[in-house]
Amino acid sequence: MGKEAKDLRVDVSRLREHFFAMARIGATPEGGVTRLALTDEDKAGRDLYLGWLKAAGLAHRLDDVGNIYGRREGSDPTAPAVMLGSHLDTVTQGGKYDGTLGVMAALEVVRTLNDAGIRTRHPLELTVFTNEEGARFQPALLAAGVVAGKFDLDYAYSRTDSGGKTFGSELERIGYKGSRANRPGPLKAYLEFHIEQGPVLEAAGLSVGVVEGIQGQIWLEVTVSGQADHAGPTPMPMRRDSLVAAARIIAGIRNLAYLIDPEAVTTVGRIKVQPDIINVIPGRTVFTIDIRHPRDELVDLGTAMARRTIERICREERVECRVEEMWRMPTTRFDPVVVDAVERATRELGYSYRRMMSGAGHDAKYMADIAPTGMIFVPTVNGKSHCEEEAAPWEDIEKGANVLLQTTLALAGVD
Amino acid sequence: MGKEAKDLRVDVSRLREHFFAMARIGATPEGGVTRLALTDEDKAGRDLYLGWLKAAGLAHRLDDVGNIYGRREGSDPTAPAVMLGSHLDTVTQGGKYDGTLGVMAALEVVRTLNDAGIRTRHPLELTVFTNEEGARFQPALLAAGVVAGKFDLDYAYSRTDSGGKTFGSELERIGYKGSRANRPGPLKAYLEFHIEQGPVLEAAGLSVGVVEGIQGQIWLEVTVSGQADHAGPTPMPMRRDSLVAAARIIAGIRNLAYLIDPEAVTTVGRIKVQPDIINVIPGRTVFTIDIRHPRDELVDLGTAMARRTIERICREERVECRVEEMWRMPTTRFDPVVVDAVERATRELGYSYRRMMSGAGHDAKYMADIAPTGMIFVPTVNGKSHCEEEAAPWEDIEKGANVLLQTTLALAGVD
Repeated sequence: MGKEAKDLRVDVSRLREHFFAMARIGATPEGGVTRLALTDEDKAGRDLYLGWLKAAGLAHRLDDVGNIYGRREGSDPTAPAVMLGSHLDTVTQGGKYDGTLGVMAALEVVRTLNDAGIRTRHPLELTVFTNEEGARFQPALLAAGVVAGKFDLDYAYSRTDSGGKTFGSELERIGYKGSRANRPGPLKAYLEFHIEQGPVLEAAGLSVGVVEGIQGQIWLEVTVSGQADHAGPTPMPMRRDSLVAAARIIAGIRNLAYLIDPEAVTTVGRIKVQPDIINVIPGRTVFTIDIRHPRDELVDLGTAMARRTIERICREERVECRVEEMWRMPTTRFDPVVVDAVERATRELGYSYRRMMSGAGHDAKYMADIAPTGMIFVPTVNGKSHCEEEAAPWEDIEKGANVLLQTTLALAGVD
Repeated sequence: MGKEAKDLRVDVSRLREHFFAMARIGATPEGGVTRLALTDEDKAGRDLYLGWLKAAGLAHRLDDVGNIYGRREGSDPTAPAVMLGSHLDTVTQGGKYDGTLGVMAALEVVRTLNDAGIRTRHPLELTVFTNEEGARFQPALLAAGVVAGKFDLDYAYSRTDSGGKTFGSELERIGYKGSRANRPGPLKAYLEFHIEQGPVLEAAGLSVGVVEGIQGQIWLEVTVSGQADHAGPTPMPMRRDSLVAAARIIAGIRNLAYLIDPEAVTTVGRIKVQPDIINVIPGRTVFTIDIRHPRDELVDLGTAMARRTIERICREERVECRVEEMWRMPTTRFDPVVVDAVERATRELGYSYRRMMSGAGHDAKYMADIAPTGMIFVPTVNGKSHCEEEAAPWEDIEKGANVLLQTTLALAGVD
């Protein structure tokens, strides 16, 4: 790569302008965005994006699950593409940055190359994946999963939202159903730029996260069944209180994380009691457990310890329990060559950074199955994401976008 | 009282027949009853009951909060009445026995006296109180509370159900609004027959509970506010998890009961987390605490200990907390003369019994403010009440109804 390419930097004000234009689509009164997959808002966001692709001189194609690919040809017509991707869909009352930032930064990379008149050896493909969040159609990462061969097409089409509409019919309705032949060919690399969605970079005062992979995780659903008696006349020793058992388990599950390893995290995010009446002992309590660690064997250890904790406490409290595995996602390790390329670009740009694992899932999770993959993180203000306050410092976004640019140049090559 | 009166016993098959006829009104498919106050079902139950009052030769009157009084005159026209009462309203998907059993047993007492041609010195009044449960209009014990001077009439009329309808308008709609002049005059005694709604009598193998009063209780609502972060990327030491704090508090509140006294009970019946998403740390958890003990000072002690537990744990977990007192009900001690009369009748009938406090509230709670009051309990199968399985053994119901009969005769006197 010549000096000219090494000195290239994105135009952050242009990136910012396009980013906030996209944020107006599905904007909520409190400053967030609701742009659920395959809704009218999603269509409007996609339409806007296609206009920008065209303005940047990129031809686009759609595949059979609605993924958008904007292609910038390279000098070697037979070389595999370097793909830069993320998603435009959000959760309900989500933030402006999750997904969208990566899509917009990838577009800014192409504009910067256009302005400098730089042609890469490998072609570039800018990708928008459909239904990353799983907020409307479950599971999450659905369309990236189809491309990676993780999910069947029929499975994807038959996913149903809470109103009974299918992924397939909604994809056709908004006019974004393309053809299977348009799925990506062999890839040189997949790069995804994203906000961290956690507090680690901010707390460490660092600008960039060089992502080595995605933590393994498991989701469990625990059902505790006791007896729903009247809170007044039932003496304490005669009770079989499902919520007391659940409360002891929840405290125990938190402590587990500290027992396993400093990188382990355990979370109880949902809980529901029945009958949920102030003066009735809860007869039934259902709650979820989320356990994550960068090493699968420690996720397994955490799961075994969680099961033992649940069984012991339920026995002590004389209640029944049932534990169901809802979901299991093994650890993903990104490609060392791509991760090293991201780290080298960051170091050469002189930005502060650390190597880290992603705690959350991303389209990169499945793309790593079919392409050498890497991710770039920037800090998240107060670690908050999937909420209307979600934000990232623009000085760090600028740095992250430059890392994306320079990593792309390093991987795609410049004649 | 002569030998004839002493030997008098209720006709349990007649009681049973009428009881199950009433249970058909608002019957649920699973064998319970939904007969919320001032609904069409409540009106149908009241209409049926008025027909039975008439058939038993009793004139009835309605007061301004819809309480029904069926009067059987005594031989002394100036003597204060002995009132036998309870309620016909139920909770949603409640049982057949709660309230209704006391109303039906009181009617059976009158029928038994009619058949035997026995006239009491004091008049008898059979009473059905409106909206005891508080399931439709809060607070509970509403119409008994108005009669006892605990609540203003305007307050009662303005109580609103979840659909926005008021107690006053619904009372008029079903045609059960009477006049203030029909509220009870001075009373010789108030007696209420009821299922225990707890497991104590059944566990002890006893047929009758001689109720000495109603436990004091307090309801608190606790709001714990932490921070809703993503479950994956947020390291354990950086979390402010409102549910972990709540779980530790719930376990602590249970232990409190054992620290205070064997008769103390503490219950967390309701809990709700936000945002209630599997992979988000709960930012906010709201739950209730119910603390009861027969001695008010131990309810106070329990409350103070609960507050200290909440404050300590929230400080440790770096979350905010707010504790609100929702409701406070001091201990009620029933009239010793009436309680002794119930005990004497039970002993003379040769039934097994124990003196006990009621863990639940009843119309007797407020009636005790304006009349010498007592209650008679019978066991509850598996201690279950406010549910469709609610039941009481009929051999014990027969005994309890005979205690009601004999206590009534003892207090009302026979010429």
